[in-house]
Amino acid sequence: MEADTERARAMAPRAGGESLISFAGGMPDSGLFPIDAFRRVLNEVVRDEGAALLQYYPVGGYPPLRRYLATYLLRFGLEARAEDILIVNGSQQGFDLIARTLLDPGDAVAIEQPTYPRAMQVFRSFGAQLVPVDRDEAGPRVDLFERVLERHAPKMFYCQPSAHNPSGLTMRRDVGVRLLAVAARHQVPIVEDGFDGSLYYGQRPPGPLKALDRDGVVIYIGTFSKILFPGLRLGWLVAPAPIAERLQAAKQLADLHTSALIQAAVHRFCERKLLDRHVARVAAEYGRRRMVLLSALKRRMPEDVSWTEPHGGFSLLLTLPSGLEAAALLPRAIERGVAYTPGSAFWVDGAGERTLRLSFSSVTSAQIEEGIKRLAELIRNARRQPARRDALERVAAPLV
Amino acid sequence: MEADTERARAMAPRAGGESLISFAGGMPDSGLFPIDAFRRVLNEVVRDEGAALLQYYPVGGYPPLRRYLATYLLRFGLEARAEDILIVNGSQQGFDLIARTLLDPGDAVAIEQPTYPRAMQVFRSFGAQLVPVDRDEAGPRVDLFERVLERHAPKMFYCQPSAHNPSGLTMRRDVGVRLLAVAARHQVPIVEDGFDGSLYYGQRPPGPLKALDRDGVVIYIGTFSKILFPGLRLGWLVAPAPIAERLQAAKQLADLHTSALIQAAVHRFCERKLLDRHVARVAAEYGRRRMVLLSALKRRMPEDVSWTEPHGGFSLLLTLPSGLEAAALLPRAIERGVAYTPGSAFWVDGAGERTLRLSFSSVTSAQIEEGIKRLAELIRNARRQPARRDALERVAAPLV
Repeated sequence: MEADTERARAMAPRAGGESLISFAGGMPDSGLFPIDAFRRVLNEVVRDEGAALLQYYPVGGYPPLRRYLATYLLRFGLEARAEDILIVNGSQQGFDLIARTLLDPGDAVAIEQPTYPRAMQVFRSFGAQLVPVDRDEAGPRVDLFERVLERHAPKMFYCQPSAHNPSGLTMRRDVGVRLLAVAARHQVPIVEDGFDGSLYYGQRPPGPLKALDRDGVVIYIGTFSKILFPGLRLGWLVAPAPIAERLQAAKQLADLHTSALIQAAVHRFCERKLLDRHVARVAAEYGRRRMVLLSALKRRMPEDVSWTEPHGGFSLLLTLPSGLEAAALLPRAIERGVAYTPGSAFWVDGAGERTLRLSFSSVTSAQIEEGIKRLAELIRNARRQPARRDALERVAAPLV
Repeated sequence: MEADTERARAMAPRAGGESLISFAGGMPDSGLFPIDAFRRVLNEVVRDEGAALLQYYPVGGYPPLRRYLATYLLRFGLEARAEDILIVNGSQQGFDLIARTLLDPGDAVAIEQPTYPRAMQVFRSFGAQLVPVDRDEAGPRVDLFERVLERHAPKMFYCQPSAHNPSGLTMRRDVGVRLLAVAARHQVPIVEDGFDGSLYYGQRPPGPLKALDRDGVVIYIGTFSKILFPGLRLGWLVAPAPIAERLQAAKQLADLHTSALIQAAVHRFCERKLLDRHVARVAAEYGRRRMVLLSALKRRMPEDVSWTEPHGGFSLLLTLPSGLEAAALLPRAIERGVAYTPGSAFWVDGAGERTLRLSFSSVTSAQIEEGIKRLAELIRNARRQPARRDALERVAAPLV
């Protein structure tokens, strides 16, 4: 399902006169985009440096952006030299370059569960066997991680320590320290999907795993997709030296380099502190929507429904009462004017049938209130009627 | 060697006071870029459609650009529906997606020889064994092609029918027709690197192979890198239906989609006929440089030096007298203030030692005149002194 389709559906008036309220898409709200400010910096960089930015460009990236990112990452305790930062086309290309650099068909990949479906898809497309490591509220379970390393000798471990998608939880610092020690002992790289450490609610999260990485086992993936614009296709990788060289060679083979024009515009946007101002503004707005969602859930949901309390990101994970399946329930939810993402897409093994992801990033407070009212009613009613299981195939993996 | 390094070197003043004249880089001249016109359309599309263009976007591409390309390709006799055109990050990503879609490690790939080195690199990075098909003035030799298909059962055949890099020659129409028939009989896809059919000199070239493709064997790769800006990273693929779907799935895994902002700006630039005007202007200028180069070669080179007469593109292939090697001669050429790309990089098997590529796209008429004077003197002198063979490792593969 394309993000656009989801968005269009979220807006579309429905047969009954009510519009569909969609908690399905995990993208930032384009209504909050700083379009005019970005237009101005884009205009400036073309005027000032157009000839160089529109010519072929060195693969590593636009040097001022790499320097900016080195400073930006220091805020989170992550030390990287500008020349160790490789610019890529969003975190998706990061997954892809890492997979093609580290994986051969048949290799095992350990992966936090639940997790981001598109990461799974990429690793599988290179022939990897995914081995899940279940997580709890504090992060991936270290005992299970160690067992997976011993039994399956995976080539890498993928996880989202900050703003985990779908739960919105962050990894506890002591869990991170223990994961790192185990990974270092087994010499297994950890692929850290940074998602976004800047978008957090309440107390500041413990920061990226890479900031604690004394043994050079972490490959960090960062992206501007959540904090600025997904459509830029702009992200970055920070990897230990021998892997970094191979990633850069893979990037050159994949598409020579990422648009220097986009890189320069984002650099100027950041340098003027426009990104900081934007992030502060949207974090406050997303934080309000998160509060409205948590409050609505608390007031309206039956007692045997539970959910995560997100520290960051755009979504939370809700668990239905036993006997109900999120995918089977979705067609009836859409009939009643509310949509979500069934959770099974986030499980390696298709489990998580009782869970669903609610994104709060692209819905207003009024929509959240009304949407949760409809969903709560549906759940109460569904207990009295058996769910239709044949609807499963109507549900595609979420884009983001 | 990075394009930037080449460019910087071309500009750098040298010890002897003379600056280096470089025929090495195969990129368009950034001095001819229509920067201001592009800045204006970019500014407009952000203003008019910024929110949609900066959000996640459907993988296939920006629909108006796909429709424009369908019409543009019709000029060359290539019929494609807009929905059959997949937007990618330049032809390099085209190679990459095709390789990952069609190749398994150990597969044979038939490839025109000489050919574009970066295409070879990509196919090799997927574990392909490259089997050369030598070409003559008319194109790849069909008898050799057929023999390679029979003996090696390759998964595909890669060639550049229009504006072949490095020779600048175009494929003769009857050769194309026979290649297509052989490929169809053996059910082997032809990967046609379109490079650019708009940049031709003298009579109009016979057009893309894909325009003659009745059996659906051709995958066409197009790019804006030569006719507009390389730094956009913007190209497209036209493939037979079953392969097209797999290419689109591969594109989604690789990086979700190409920047819709860049696509929309280029679309508006094209729609206003600014691309047509630009191509007419640069084709005339590159045509003049080509004439100056051919004339200088004719006047100055020893009789036993030969070269191709390019119909299109940015370069020609020159063959040194027997006994001389282009790579070994390069350090002395640089000492004398002239650079070129040794030809062996364009051969699958490292042959072509006596050849070198001269690009005329980024040098002025005065530089061409002086550069060829230096090169001709060098060749005359080199016959009297043996070439230093130890210089081979100083020479990297050309970027473009």
